[in-house]
Amino acid sequence: MRYAVLGTGIVGRTIAAKLASLGHDVAIGTRDPEATLARAEPDAYGNPPFSHWQAAHEQIRLETFADAAARGGTIVNTTAGAGSLAALEAAGAANLAGKVLIDIANPLDFSQGMPPSLNPVNTDSLGEQIQRAFPDTKVVKSLNTMNCRVMVDPSRVAGEHTVFVCGDDTGAKKAVTELLTSFGWPEDSVIDLGGISTARGTEMLLPIWLRLWGALGHADFNFHIAGARSGA
Amino acid sequence: MRYAVLGTGIVGRTIAAKLASLGHDVAIGTRDPEATLARAEPDAYGNPPFSHWQAAHEQIRLETFADAAARGGTIVNTTAGAGSLAALEAAGAANLAGKVLIDIANPLDFSQGMPPSLNPVNTDSLGEQIQRAFPDTKVVKSLNTMNCRVMVDPSRVAGEHTVFVCGDDTGAKKAVTELLTSFGWPEDSVIDLGGISTARGTEMLLPIWLRLWGALGHADFNFHIAGARSGA
Repeated sequence: MRYAVLGTGIVGRTIAAKLASLGHDVAIGTRDPEATLARAEPDAYGNPPFSHWQAAHEQIRLETFADAAARGGTIVNTTAGAGSLAALEAAGAANLAGKVLIDIANPLDFSQGMPPSLNPVNTDSLGEQIQRAFPDTKVVKSLNTMNCRVMVDPSRVAGEHTVFVCGDDTGAKKAVTELLTSFGWPEDSVIDLGGISTARGTEMLLPIWLRLWGALGHADFNFHIAGARSGA
Repeated sequence: MRYAVLGTGIVGRTIAAKLASLGHDVAIGTRDPEATLARAEPDAYGNPPFSHWQAAHEQIRLETFADAAARGGTIVNTTAGAGSLAALEAAGAANLAGKVLIDIANPLDFSQGMPPSLNPVNTDSLGEQIQRAFPDTKVVKSLNTMNCRVMVDPSRVAGEHTVFVCGDDTGAKKAVTELLTSFGWPEDSVIDLGGISTARGTEMLLPIWLRLWGALGHADFNFHIAGARSGA
């Protein structure tokens, strides 16, 4: 399969590397590949410059948002939530049309200080905004409720735990569930919450996730819905 | 111990009955006891009138908010979130001063249709509003992230699952944790998220809780934080 991973941060790198390790054709999309490669300093989170990472992942191409999206059969949005709509505009609606878009981003708003708040929130979500902006794209919100190392290696967290899928297209959710299975997620760890408006609920897990990260002192945890199958 | 449970709905009844079954002295507080007892119809959720319930729980007194709060050593807020501040004003700051207040309410806002949204949300929480309005009261947000039957009988949900405590007073959180233990919660199922501002995160679990309720078709589920202790 051909994947376009939009975003050069740690989430994008982690997802891209996992996809490549599974044998997929992977391009990472960025606004300006030359500028991305020219950066010599670690990012705001202390991650090494992209060029260092790419040297160890030569099979993963770095392209413009539009070039990556044009050739990708499935799109993965890992851009910062505040810039996701602009990144997807740059990718181009025509390059996204008819494709599955896995939206991993969260609309964290750092403008009001720490901890970040969410924008949009409560009566809207980033997942819904993207679906409205790109009605010909099949948006599936998933994986946005955990650390990126857990996304691609659920065995990092002991015991059963959950990954949610939200979206209006049943076939797209099935395809994403199959991808999750290939990442190591047991099929019964996937909970389909319903349509894309349920993305509100998963994005609204971020505030407690951030507080748990602080309280626990590590990121190798995840939400599990205990008793999910007891009424079945 | 003497408990004042504010609110006559299904959450208040369930908590009050559990406390009474454990041998505590329990009063339920309401705005107008005569009006509460005069109701002959089921409530909006189909629960039987309070008078029917009370006939089976004669040891639990029904009093005004103020009378219940005055005699209660610990206060439990189970009123509807939109009315919690007014109910606590009616209880009276002097009757709440120096006491532990367990806030189980969620600020659900039905004014924008279904599913309900939250108000406040994101940059504030009902727990914080209550703590600000009653600075001499030790507010502990807890139990608000699950169905009330699970609150008092965690064994309804198979496997490990979590109850959060949020509050500025360490001693108050310890007292609430002991109460939770008496309800059947294993001590290591309690996660202390930090100060009362962390109540934002627990209240923001409601949107996904409501969607899970719909997707799963039953309420005997709960959040578990998998891997919480793996970094310890």
